[in-house]
Amino acid sequence: MASSSPPLLALTTGEPAGVGPELVVQLAAAGELPARTVAVGDPALLAERAARLGVRLELQELAPGSSVPASAPGILPVWPVALHAPSRPGRLSVANAAYVLETLDVAIQACRVGQADAMVTAPLHKGVIIESGHAGFRGHTEYLRDACGIDEVVMMLATDRALHAHEASWVGGGALRVALATTHLPLREVADAVTASRLERILRILHADLVRWYGVKTPSIAVCGLNPHAGEGGHLGTEERDVIAPVLEALRAEGFALDGPLPADTLFTPRHLAGIDAVLAMYHDQGLPVLKYAGFGRAANVTLGLPFPRTSVDHGTALDLAGRGEADRGSLRVALALAAEMAGRGACRST
Amino acid sequence: MASSSPPLLALTTGEPAGVGPELVVQLAAAGELPARTVAVGDPALLAERAARLGVRLELQELAPGSSVPASAPGILPVWPVALHAPSRPGRLSVANAAYVLETLDVAIQACRVGQADAMVTAPLHKGVIIESGHAGFRGHTEYLRDACGIDEVVMMLATDRALHAHEASWVGGGALRVALATTHLPLREVADAVTASRLERILRILHADLVRWYGVKTPSIAVCGLNPHAGEGGHLGTEERDVIAPVLEALRAEGFALDGPLPADTLFTPRHLAGIDAVLAMYHDQGLPVLKYAGFGRAANVTLGLPFPRTSVDHGTALDLAGRGEADRGSLRVALALAAEMAGRGACRST
Repeated sequence: MASSSPPLLALTTGEPAGVGPELVVQLAAAGELPARTVAVGDPALLAERAARLGVRLELQELAPGSSVPASAPGILPVWPVALHAPSRPGRLSVANAAYVLETLDVAIQACRVGQADAMVTAPLHKGVIIESGHAGFRGHTEYLRDACGIDEVVMMLATDRALHAHEASWVGGGALRVALATTHLPLREVADAVTASRLERILRILHADLVRWYGVKTPSIAVCGLNPHAGEGGHLGTEERDVIAPVLEALRAEGFALDGPLPADTLFTPRHLAGIDAVLAMYHDQGLPVLKYAGFGRAANVTLGLPFPRTSVDHGTALDLAGRGEADRGSLRVALALAAEMAGRGACRST
Repeated sequence: MASSSPPLLALTTGEPAGVGPELVVQLAAAGELPARTVAVGDPALLAERAARLGVRLELQELAPGSSVPASAPGILPVWPVALHAPSRPGRLSVANAAYVLETLDVAIQACRVGQADAMVTAPLHKGVIIESGHAGFRGHTEYLRDACGIDEVVMMLATDRALHAHEASWVGGGALRVALATTHLPLREVADAVTASRLERILRILHADLVRWYGVKTPSIAVCGLNPHAGEGGHLGTEERDVIAPVLEALRAEGFALDGPLPADTLFTPRHLAGIDAVLAMYHDQGLPVLKYAGFGRAANVTLGLPFPRTSVDHGTALDLAGRGEADRGSLRVALALAAEMAGRGACRST
């Protein structure tokens, strides 16, 4: 990107039968797309959803990868990808699974070659993609990881910075950020999955990307224990002593600023969150309930470890709401803002 | 208790070297003890802590089990139990472990025979009690359970009702209440401990005590899944389908109002908490981080399933703070208020 232009966000519009397309047209109509944003999807679909909701919107079709003007209310630049079959709100079609993946491919390619600076994804429907013949499909995050040819990424959720702006001492000036050491695993598999090598890889990615995309010089990371009370000195589990603490010790020796392992129900209090840039939870339900509670629909998903920033809404396709214009735009708004912020920082550092 | 008197709370002052005694004298001096409250502990210890902090306080020694006047600022009624050895702030003494248990015995006995209506406990120190020869000592909750000769109790944490008073549609009019299906277990033991029979027992106690102590006619309980996304239809674990859902189904057939199993990170959002009287989390770190985050030091621990209400602070002895008068009184204040509320309701129902 030219150093004088704001960063360009490639926004995939997601499952065509879900709420993704309408969220995108609504934000575009309201002038709520940040910096420069280009939708990746079927222009006719987007036009149809705009008409259905009575939203006035001019679609600007541009060749995929080509340059995109600054965002303006009522205008939506689109890198077109054609639907494989007509799509109706709420009705999944196996024929369009490939379309959804094609939108991802266009955005990934543009980010990889520097035509776009970050990627933002509206929700897709895992089930219909699996059903279409991609049996191993696990979701956006893993698809991006594989497409970029890397081994490990980190899932992090972050709240809108403005949400906690009155608590300026908090976590990166108001945003609560929670990264996960393990993600979508049955609970009984979690303890074995928290290995020293995984923790080390995850912490290295988290640290590096807080430096790169968030502009933090020495990221301060608070790390949860695995067990209640962080094992209470070995009485409630030994993984803190045997697995987690040694990894933290080794990384501290390299200059990492790591606090922990701490009891999760102590860590998530204002006193401990003050000055922390991110929390690392050991597993999904240790970290995300408090993030979602704090975020109130103003949180987004961030994938760290990719060569470019990628953010996503924290909700699904909401098929039952699709086509009605009632879905909450908060999470997509936050996902776009976070991507713009990250891409802006990353770009500044590399120029 | 006479139906015209406010409920009587027996307040054990806890580990003498910890912050318990000073929290009690501070609240008494400030007139913040509710209804009728009697401290159970060593009067000389309490007088010494009051003097140390420059707190003016009149101690009223009463025979254990005898009647207690209404609370008034600057006066602290005490059912005396003598220390076994002198106690200094911050210095644990094995000799006083028996003293701590004796204060519990006095309060339990009074509650069991109806001389007191509820029990509130300041923190004790598990380690020193174990060291004193009670190798099997696991904490207040289990001690009370055994002393009352019952098989199962339920640990619940609740925030101060006033904290969320602006969200009147919430959880019992503003309080967030989170009960646990399992408590202090290493994470790798949790999945096997969530059995159908345990869940059924826990839900029956939770339901019955929400009726009895909280005055809710048909308690509405939201139940978390065990796995992330509540198992996502079996893709992320099968316990929801095989264990949790059948228990909920059977209890619904008896008229229980149960919602779930729900993903924990969906459940802890305003839309799902509205109208809910309590949340049942499957394990410690699924439920308590969000409770503590929401509670900000204004939460207390409640034991359900006993023949009387029992509440407790949600923090420990804070030995490092003891004797300095700096410990936060918020949790003990909430514990007292909850006990008074519960005892008042229970008493009203039985007269």
